[in-house]
Order: sequence, then C-alpha cells, then structure tokens
Amino acid sequence: MAHKGFARTDELFARAGRVVPGGIYGHQTPRMLVPGSYPYFFERGQGARVWDVDGNEYVDYMCSYGPIVLGHGNPAVEEAAERQRRKGSCFNGPTPLWVELAEHLVELTPWAAWAGFGKNGSDVCTWAIEIAREHTRRKKIVKAEGAYHGTHSWCTPLPAGTTPEDTANVVSFRYNDLADLGRVLDEHRGDVAGIILTPFRHDAFHDQELPVEGFLAGVRRVADEHGAVLILDDVRAGFRLHLGGSGELFGVRPDLTCYCKALANGYALSACLGRESLRKAAERVFFTGSYFTSGVEMAAALACLKELAVGNGVATMKRMGTMLREGMEAQARSHATLVRSSGPPAIPFLSFVADEGSFERSRVFCTECIQRGVYFHPHHNWFLSAAHTETDIRRTLEATDEAFAAVRRRFGS
Amino acid sequence: MAHKGFARTDELFARAGRVVPGGIYGHQTPRMLVPGSYPYFFERGQGARVWDVDGNEYVDYMCSYGPIVLGHGNPAVEEAAERQRRKGSCFNGPTPLWVELAEHLVELTPWAAWAGFGKNGSDVCTWAIEIAREHTRRKKIVKAEGAYHGTHSWCTPLPAGTTPEDTANVVSFRYNDLADLGRVLDEHRGDVAGIILTPFRHDAFHDQELPVEGFLAGVRRVADEHGAVLILDDVRAGFRLHLGGSGELFGVRPDLTCYCKALANGYALSACLGRESLRKAAERVFFTGSYFTSGVEMAAALACLKELAVGNGVATMKRMGTMLREGMEAQARSHATLVRSSGPPAIPFLSFVADEGSFERSRVFCTECIQRGVYFHPHHNWFLSAAHTETDIRRTLEATDEAFAAVRRRFGS
Repeated sequence: MAHKGFARTDELFARAGRVVPGGIYGHQTPRMLVPGSYPYFFERGQGARVWDVDGNEYVDYMCSYGPIVLGHGNPAVEEAAERQRRKGSCFNGPTPLWVELAEHLVELTPWAAWAGFGKNGSDVCTWAIEIAREHTRRKKIVKAEGAYHGTHSWCTPLPAGTTPEDTANVVSFRYNDLADLGRVLDEHRGDVAGIILTPFRHDAFHDQELPVEGFLAGVRRVADEHGAVLILDDVRAGFRLHLGGSGELFGVRPDLTCYCKALANGYALSACLGRESLRKAAERVFFTGSYFTSGVEMAAALACLKELAVGNGVATMKRMGTMLREGMEAQARSHATLVRSSGPPAIPFLSFVADEGSFERSRVFCTECIQRGVYFHPHHNWFLSAAHTETDIRRTLEATDEAFAAVRRRFGS
Repeated sequence: MAHKGFARTDELFARAGRVVPGGIYGHQTPRMLVPGSYPYFFERGQGARVWDVDGNEYVDYMCSYGPIVLGHGNPAVEEAAERQRRKGSCFNGPTPLWVELAEHLVELTPWAAWAGFGKNGSDVCTWAIEIAREHTRRKKIVKAEGAYHGTHSWCTPLPAGTTPEDTANVVSFRYNDLADLGRVLDEHRGDVAGIILTPFRHDAFHDQELPVEGFLAGVRRVADEHGAVLILDDVRAGFRLHLGGSGELFGVRPDLTCYCKALANGYALSACLGRESLRKAAERVFFTGSYFTSGVEMAAALACLKELAVGNGVATMKRMGTMLREGMEAQARSHATLVRSSGPPAIPFLSFVADEGSFERSRVFCTECIQRGVYFHPHHNWFLSAAHTETDIRRTLEATDEAFAAVRRRFGS
C-alpha cells in the first residue's frame, strides 16, 4: 500500500513544538532520525507492527528502542497486568509480586542473590555505581568511551547542564582493549570502585562490536585483581540473547547487572541484580521512587519472562534476525553494494561501507524503507521481537531490495 | 472487625529479605514505620480503602505516599488508561497524548510555556536543576536544609554511595528564613544557578511548616535579584492544593515546577513545567528514558486532572482534611493531650507535643490506629484523596478516639 505521507505527524509536531522543548526530546527526537522522512507519533501497535498517526503501517525493527520483546499487545502479558490492575498497583508498600519477581530473577541468574527495582535504565545504572562505591569505599568508576549508561550527570552523552564535578570520578577506556583498561586501572590503583560496561558495544552512530576473544574474561580478571565491582549494563541487550543475562552468552559473570527494556514488554520497570557480597552496600544506598513498588509492571515482567521462556523467544529472535541479516546481505551483494552487518542477530545493525561513518546512504536506505512500511533506524541498533514472523521478514526483504536499488541509483555505489 | 494480624505479611517479608536488599528498601521500608506493627504488602485497593495481604482493611491516609489522589480504581482514570492500552503504550515515539497533556498542563499553569515528562520525582527535580545550570551557566544550587528532592546523589538524604563531588555545588539555607537565604546567595554571588524549594516544608520526622508571611515572595525577589532560576518542587503537594500548582495558593510563581505523585493517580509519570525563557536550556539538557513517552500514563494523567477539576477534588480534600483535623484536635483536647496539627488540610500531619520530636507517642498512636483499620504514618505527612468521604472520616475518628485513649493510658500525658 502506498505511504500516506505525514500530514497529521507534521500537524502534531508543530503543536508539540509550542508546548514541549524541542517538540520531542531525548533519544526519540526527530533530530536522531531523518527529520521530515520519519513518523514521530504513534497511534497503535500489534505484534511486530506499528501504525503512525497518519495511518501508515510498519514492520517495526526498533521495538520502542527495546522494550517490546514479545510484540505489542502480547495476550499473556496484558492478561497478567490486567489481573493486577483490577486489584490496584501503586500502594503504601509493594504487592506480593515484588517478592515473586525478585525470586524469579534470582532463579534465572546463576550468580545473583538479590534484585531491586526502579523504573528506568538510568535509575539502576546509577544505583549500581553507587553500590560499587559504597561497597569499596572508593570513588572512581571506569566506563568505555562513548558507551551509553543513561542520562544521569555522571554519564550523560551531552554535557549541557552538568558540572565538571559530576564527571570528576569517571574515567574511560576503549571497549575491547584490555591493555587500555589495565592502564586506566593502574593509573587509579586503589581508587576504582567499579567497572561498568555493556555485554557488547552498541553505541549509536557506530557499527556494533561483539566482545573480542578473551576481552570479557580479561575484564573480569582485572576487576578482581583490583578489587573493583564489575557491573554489566544489560539494559539494552538483556533477555534478547539469554534469559540468564547476556553475560551467560559471552561467558562472563558480573557482580551487578542492570536490566530494563525487555524486562516487562513495555511496562515501566528496571532491575538491578547483585551478588551476595554486595547486599549490605545495596541496603545502605538510598534508592526509591513514587512508583518503584507498583504491582502492574511486575505482573507484566513475570508474564513476559515466562512467555519468553515457554515460547523460546530468544531462539525465535535469533532465527528471525539471522533470516533478516542473511537476506539483506544477499541483496547487498546482488546490488554490488558493500555493507557491514554488526551485533547479534536479535539486536542487529547494518551500515554502508562507502559511507565511511557519515550514514548518508543509511539515511536514504532507511527513508526508502519507511516509505515501504519498514521501520529501521539509520544511526542506532535495531531490535527483533519474538513476534516477528517469517512473513514479516519476507515483507521486509521486499522493501529492503528496493531500498538497496534506490541507494545504488542515488550514490552509484 | 478485629485485626487479623500479620501472618502472611511476616511470611512474605521473610521471603523478601532473602531476595531483595533489606526486603523492602527506600521510603516504604518498614524501618520508616513501626516494624512489626504495620502491614508491608498490599493485596488491593478501592477508593480510600486498602487491604493488606492478611485481609485487613484500612482507611488509607498515605494514598501510596501521594499518587492516589482520586482513590484507587477511579473509573474515569481506568477507562482512559484502558482505551490507550488497547492501542498500545510504549512506541518508537510518543502518542498524540504527549501533545494533549503538555497543552493541558500549560493551560492549567498561568506562567508556564512548556512541559516535559519523566517517570519519577527525582527525574524531573534533577532535570530542573540542570536546566537552571544550563540557562545561567552557573553551578550552585540552593536548597533548604533537610528538604527532600529525590534520591539523586546531589540531594539524597543518605550519603551512602555518593562522593563529596556530588554535593560540591549544592548549598543549603533554612526554610522560612529569608535572611539565611540572602546570606547564602551573597556568599555565592554570581554563581547561583537556581533555588529549589517545596511550597511548604514537609520534611519527614518534622512537623510541617507553611511558608511564613512574605517568605515565598521574598524568595522570588531574591532569585530575580541574583539572576537565579526559581524551582518549585511540587512533587509531593502538586494538584492537592491548587490545579495551577501550589505556588498559586501561596502567591508565588516559579520559573520551573516539578510534578509527580498526584499527576496520574498512581500511574508512573512526572512532569517539569517551565517559562518561555528556559525553553532553549531545556532543549539542550539531555533528558530521556525508555518509557518517558508512553501513552497509558498520559491518558491516566489527562483523565485524572480533568476529574479533579470536574469533581472539585481540591475542595473535597480540603473539606475532608479539615473534618479530620478538627475531629482529632477535639479528641486530643478531650483526652487532655497536647497535639500539633501541621500542613494544609489535604496534606496533614499530627504530632504529640510531649514527644518533643521523639515520635514515641506517634508510634503508639499510629499502631493503635492500624489495629483499628486506619492507616496513618508516624513520621511522614499524610495525604487525603478526593475519594475520602464523611463516612471514612467518621470511621477514622472512632479509631483515633480509642488511639488517643491508649496513648494516654500508656504515657499518662
């Protein structure tokens, strides 16, 4: 069906621009996409499909930047949430689901003794570094250059509104470079509280990088040698690669791990899991919010995790992601276009070699896909969900074949 | 009906203690209440009543520490949320409700030009100080001693896990003391980005204090003289005193205001509203989260605000709160017990003069009330909702009369 354009999108965005800073701020700002060529507002979703406010339908490969791991409107999740909702959600204390969800997460995670809950990824990443500081009585946090761990001032990618003091105790190393990590730890010997890193490199505006052989094991060893807490930021990747945490797939067991996005299929919930040795420090760091104990989100999370397990969602996402990747790589070859696929199949990304990091061809490619009812992101990794079907992938590949042709016509290579 | 005890509460809390740091952490930890004498886990709620996991029913004066402003399960809110939920909530961008809610909040607030949304009070209070810093290109934030503005490291009430650098740019003054504020601003002349304060003093473990005559107007004047941004933290009080913000009631108009709790009747949502002059700075400070644009919470907020307006909820809460206060004060007199009521009627608190800040009698009083099906907090201000009825207040006053008698028996004064 022909794309209907963006008349209502434009009208809503003009209204938004009057009453919201930038109209839409944060990671979903049109500035991060291709302004004018993307939908900005959404009307509804079902499974792997979303509809924008102009009535355009898309096979969605962003999954709301991660949360929608079972597809929109998953019946098991919605029924569980509805059962709790009829009783209420936000009380003077938790519901019994607080205990059930913590027990379930600890059971899923071989090394974890406890879990705590927040609302966003930023909440739990900040809690984790504070637990590391409290446990070690040290100040420095080591992170990978360019890695995103949320918007809080110690790690925000944009310095506006922060002070130099906010980042005075944060030092950086190059992901996948053990020697550089060793250098940083030696330089701050005796003062490193924790090392925080993602299970693979998935920075925006970059090809993704899987951990090189020995890297994560080396990080684990170096952390232990220096008495630093190892924090795995699994906010973006968690539950798409392994239900026991992405560290299980890559062979590393951290001391703390942070989950958010795929935890509750779109319901606002995040979690930090930790080893027994960090329990006392976690008790001492004050961590709370008006909705941290709400029950509906926890009902959704329990149902989401169980549905992922029963339906073997991780395997489905890998299979569908592989079908997508192989299909697009074959198309690129047939169009004599050099592309780079990166990241695990369930969290894929594709870029054009000739772009040399400009993402010029990516923007044209993604715009052509949008016109044909397929939602990719030109500058940020993509996400599969367990609701993606072979029919979705085949429909996608029809669009991408034409999009590759359009890139070829436009750029000649 | 006789209180059934806490057998299931104890069992759940023992399980929680194994898999969650402290069992329940944050502001709802039993340590903040009277451990052993309070319910910790909740089964359901309806209107102004809540039921704990042991089946005990309470008239609830905490309203989930604020969010439940229309009572649990309010039909207008739940229907609006359900309408959005059927379409989906968390997408690659906002729903049209993002625009509608921002427009509605700006319309309600005489001085505000824009609104932005987060999930918790901490999110928006931190965003506000960062906007102030970005706008002024200054570093210092002035806050009242002991005031709570969230858990983030610049303002957490407990220092565990923080570094000295986190609070290096935060300075304090005494609430209701203009001379002290003037002293602080003079000391940091030219470097104060913003002043953040609550519309009245509602610190835990304290009687509440309304702003003294001229205080808030004086703060406004001093902020202007020093070119500092005035931030009203209306997270706790917002929409219980005035739909245009608590500043309207007390005669002060800030530059930024932070809302959370009563905004969406228990759905996870917070908001920051600002003047036109701060729009550009707000655009520049990176502020986002996985669920910041979700639609269901915004549907709930729109319905909640409209229901508060149509039903004149603010007047109801004031009337019910006044009936409660006057009833309890009369009972205290009849028991020859000196008490102090503090705060606005919709956000009341009561303490015992003879306690001299120990809250010993308060704990006995509140425990006796719990036994009689009334949920007060011994150390934290209380909240009325628009669902509280005269029947609720009368039932409450039966319990409090016996609780005053019990305090008298136990302490003799």
